[in-house]
Amino acid sequence: MEKQKEEYKDLGFGTKAAEKNQRLINPDGSFNVEITGQPLSERYHLYHNLIHMSWWRFAMMVVLFYLFGNLFFAAIYMAIGVEHLAGVIAETYLEQFYEAFFFSAQTITTVGYGRISPTGFESSLVASIESLLGLLGFALATGVLYGRFSRPEVKILYSQQAVIAPYREEKAFMVRLANKRRSKLIELEVQVVFTRNENKNGKVIRQFYTLELERSKISLLPTSWTVVHALSENSPLYNVTPSDLFESDAEFLVMLKAFDETFSQTVYSRYSYKPSELVWDAKFSNIFGLTETGKTTMEYDRFHEIEKLTL
Amino acid sequence: MEKQKEEYKDLGFGTKAAEKNQRLINPDGSFNVEITGQPLSERYHLYHNLIHMSWWRFAMMVVLFYLFGNLFFAAIYMAIGVEHLAGVIAETYLEQFYEAFFFSAQTITTVGYGRISPTGFESSLVASIESLLGLLGFALATGVLYGRFSRPEVKILYSQQAVIAPYREEKAFMVRLANKRRSKLIELEVQVVFTRNENKNGKVIRQFYTLELERSKISLLPTSWTVVHALSENSPLYNVTPSDLFESDAEFLVMLKAFDETFSQTVYSRYSYKPSELVWDAKFSNIFGLTETGKTTMEYDRFHEIEKLTL
Amino acid sequence: MEKQKEEYKDLGFGTKAAEKNQRLINPDGSFNVEITGQPLSERYHLYHNLIHMSWWRFAMMVVLFYLFGNLFFAAIYMAIGVEHLAGVIAETYLEQFYEAFFFSAQTITTVGYGRISPTGFESSLVASIESLLGLLGFALATGVLYGRFSRPEVKILYSQQAVIAPYREEKAFMVRLANKRRSKLIELEVQVVFTRNENKNGKVIRQFYTLELERSKISLLPTSWTVVHALSENSPLYNVTPSDLFESDAEFLVMLKAFDETFSQTVYSRYSYKPSELVWDAKFSNIFGLTETGKTTMEYDRFHEIEKLTL
Amino acid sequence: MEKQKEEYKDLGFGTKAAEKNQRLINPDGSFNVEITGQPLSERYHLYHNLIHMSWWRFAMMVVLFYLFGNLFFAAIYMAIGVEHLAGVIAETYLEQFYEAFFFSAQTITTVGYGRISPTGFESSLVASIESLLGLLGFALATGVLYGRFSRPEVKILYSQQAVIAPYREEKAFMVRLANKRRSKLIELEVQVVFTRNENKNGKVIRQFYTLELERSKISLLPTSWTVVHALSENSPLYNVTPSDLFESDAEFLVMLKAFDETFSQTVYSRYSYKPSELVWDAKFSNIFGLTETGKTTMEYDRFHEIEKLTL
Repeated sequence: MEKQKEEYKDLGFGTKAAEKNQRLINPDGSFNVEITGQPLSERYHLYHNLIHMSWWRFAMMVVLFYLFGNLFFAAIYMAIGVEHLAGVIAETYLEQFYEAFFFSAQTITTVGYGRISPTGFESSLVASIESLLGLLGFALATGVLYGRFSRPEVKILYSQQAVIAPYREEKAFMVRLANKRRSKLIELEVQVVFTRNENKNGKVIRQFYTLELERSKISLLPTSWTVVHALSENSPLYNVTPSDLFESDAEFLVMLKAFDETFSQTVYSRYSYKPSELVWDAKFSNIFGLTETGKTTMEYDRFHEIEKLTL
Repeated sequence: MEKQKEEYKDLGFGTKAAEKNQRLINPDGSFNVEITGQPLSERYHLYHNLIHMSWWRFAMMVVLFYLFGNLFFAAIYMAIGVEHLAGVIAETYLEQFYEAFFFSAQTITTVGYGRISPTGFESSLVASIESLLGLLGFALATGVLYGRFSRPEVKILYSQQAVIAPYREEKAFMVRLANKRRSKLIELEVQVVFTRNENKNGKVIRQFYTLELERSKISLLPTSWTVVHALSENSPLYNVTPSDLFESDAEFLVMLKAFDETFSQTVYSRYSYKPSELVWDAKFSNIFGLTETGKTTMEYDRFHEIEKLTL
Repeated sequence: MEKQKEEYKDLGFGTKAAEKNQRLINPDGSFNVEITGQPLSERYHLYHNLIHMSWWRFAMMVVLFYLFGNLFFAAIYMAIGVEHLAGVIAETYLEQFYEAFFFSAQTITTVGYGRISPTGFESSLVASIESLLGLLGFALATGVLYGRFSRPEVKILYSQQAVIAPYREEKAFMVRLANKRRSKLIELEVQVVFTRNENKNGKVIRQFYTLELERSKISLLPTSWTVVHALSENSPLYNVTPSDLFESDAEFLVMLKAFDETFSQTVYSRYSYKPSELVWDAKFSNIFGLTETGKTTMEYDRFHEIEKLTL
Repeated sequence: MEKQKEEYKDLGFGTKAAEKNQRLINPDGSFNVEITGQPLSERYHLYHNLIHMSWWRFAMMVVLFYLFGNLFFAAIYMAIGVEHLAGVIAETYLEQFYEAFFFSAQTITTVGYGRISPTGFESSLVASIESLLGLLGFALATGVLYGRFSRPEVKILYSQQAVIAPYREEKAFMVRLANKRRSKLIELEVQVVFTRNENKNGKVIRQFYTLELERSKISLLPTSWTVVHALSENSPLYNVTPSDLFESDAEFLVMLKAFDETFSQTVYSRYSYKPSELVWDAKFSNIFGLTETGKTTMEYDRFHEIEKLTL
């Protein structure tokens, strides 16, 4: 136990005591940490952003690029002179601009109807550059769309609350998890780290403990998995009380690793529980059953249900 | 042994006793489990579906999208007025609709012959939007086609029946497997889990045992691999009879992990045997030979052949 | 040692005695095995083939598809009637066919100049189908081209010959290997399996031994790596003679695993040595030096050089 | 310790003594090694080059390909005769060439306005070949762009200097590292190898030692990680002096392995420190703090700061 304790002594979060009930891991699995003084240019990664932004923002960005790209090239065609675009049907200046704009759209998408077409060196040159940029732009869009689409997006459902339930002769800390998706998860591994403030030689520092689990690996996740840590004598949670956890600003960090068969990739997921998300003397409701033909069933909509126990 | 037993105690299927000869793992490797109460919107994953649907359904979907997309835009062009599509040759209303439909097809594919071309602001605008959507749509299709095409599709051939054959001084449970594809499989690992109903303190629950194998890893799979579990004293199958297996609703779960060289990815495969798929006192036929030049051969078409032994 | 021997007892090749100096592993790393009786339809995998065929054959295939695709559609346009393709300039039947052919090419590539354009329902419909097929076809080609291009193609250079050289107080079997490519290989692992025919209870069977290596893992491969197996008392090669190896139809199988940084993937490579490729009492020439500025150099063109030793 | 020493005895760099303060690993992680005598054709790998060249060079290459491709095809159209391109508006020979050039651009990008269009067999044939090549070329570009874009580009920030600082009862060698990117790194493993010239039986050879670390693995890297090697009695650095390190041409090689969640791939990074980059009796400045709300902060811009200690 001492060895494990040492191994994850600070988990990369440092040993500075936590304050004001802050979590280390946010509900979406990101780290609750602020990095200051890093220039944006260094930290920013275009692909990372394009892959992780919402579909809504991504669509907006494509539309804006298309709009401003065409406005930009329309302006150039106007500057060269709309008379170098054969076939333009326009009386007013605004109509000429429209025609230049739509000619640009027809060029950048390579649709090229040809009702309007460039004549003369300058407008032909600009059009040939625009169509090249259009092709490269859509090549990029193809890549990014595929990247967004094919990214393994493991969605693990963690029970909204963890429980402390009677377990064999003692008590145990329990968390329930399931796969939200239809992808098959296999070779699952879970690690639970418990962290709290402790007084070491008069200085309050944050300590980290890897909790020993009844089982830390399973081969398949067809339904759900209840992760169990027995509060035995070796556990840092032995004889702990609810107020102990609140006072020491404790947190339970759940880290999951699995192989996603659909995407053929290893995926990771994280979640954490603060003392306020812990229910004492309760157990997860049984959500398993059998159909008439003998098939195992799981009631997904009762996943978070907890039953208070009268001891 | 006790430790292994503990480790895979329920394999993620729970310990509820099985009934009516239901399997845990279907022949295609999926889990025979029903999850109820989950909203479709949460569980549905577009990419997962597009990747896993049959080629036939995928082709149908592309065609329907193309057809209805063009019908939709044709309707818009008609609403704007077919007179804003220059070059339309049509006398009847139906012919006008045809022309609008084919103009739409020429726009969405960016073929843009230009015999028909948009004039005026509205139809030009709609056409520029349609060609953008067309490009993005085909970008998506490119990604999905590649995803479908390049997905490592390990196809393991498992012997239709498992056998219990004499082995050294005792008996052994045996399964034969081979690679259906031309891709090279390397670093193979197999795990066999045996499960049956057991009476524990008057309650019938499902127990899981990882079977000890003669060999659980091989470096290469040039031909076939016969997986062997000796029915020694430590085996949960020691002295078991056919009727024992039927009565306890037993099942043998075979789980394979390998690295596929063609796709450079780790792949997984599963299969299971019920007591009715188990042949006693039989062995797999020898399907290996040598060509005249001394090269090893395997008769693939005799892969499932079993020879009854007269003891 | 006994345990290792057991673990790789047949390596997946079976224990049938080899004959007529046949190798188990071909110089290109494939298995020298013939599988008979498998229907082509089951074994054939389109993507696997498209990825592994030579660039020359791949180019031929693209050209033929393009040619026959256009001939096919040209025939259809001719059948519908060339008068439904507006703008055709042709006097003879052959010229009409040319025009139909080129119209098809302009449609399938979505270039669509529009000099020739479809009029009437049938030819418009066929053209809209053709452009859809064209787009999907090129989407597939994009995916396959990327797959071919981005496939990690580890090229390990193995010394043409292995040597038996004096090593410390004894002798050792040695093989030299290097990376042919500029990609960085890291976390390399090598395994050498020795196989020969042996007489077991009067029956000649093939035995496999994993050879113990002086070092089986290295972190990086900046230059070359000499893999060393000492012929100590525990080695199956202890006191072996050249004629022993020839008579027992021996083979040394070298299996390498590494991580390729350029492709971010684990790669595998195999090679084998028959007794005729083994040089006794020789060592690999020293090909390392230092530049004037102190930088390490390796003479790649002397990689296979061996020096005979006079003992 | 002896075992580890053996395992990485030469790390793949050979045991030739280093000279003139040369590094083994360059600051960008590449190997400081020169391989001579390898034909370029064997070593060159097109994809590797296209993926690793700078964006600037890549853009230049695309532009040059586009330019020369169009010049090439323009020349062919001119050779066939510009009269076979219908719609050309040109008086001088130069203007004819321009028109042929822009027609080529419109063909290769498949924009195909159609103002200029091929008539006659030869120019139609060339145009159909050009549009095929254009499509395949842009398919390749799409793949390469995606490959460049989606390549996991782990950027680890290593402290510019390593320090030797007091640590518990003794001293320790320390290096600080952090993630430059917003991608999440998990399951980090670090290995530090120390190398120096040593006199073995009168011959100076290079020795390699894997340094024992206080902790060599962490689960997450939310902020930074200080890697610590205690200079205990077992360390090859026990009682070493600055001049010892300079004289033996020592180097500390830091090798990091991690899983990048954004790209779902294992990534590697390397760095090295020469004696001149080592600060004695100093420690890394504390750059951690808490916001008013209790959130952990890290001052990235003070990452390299070192404080000299007065002992």
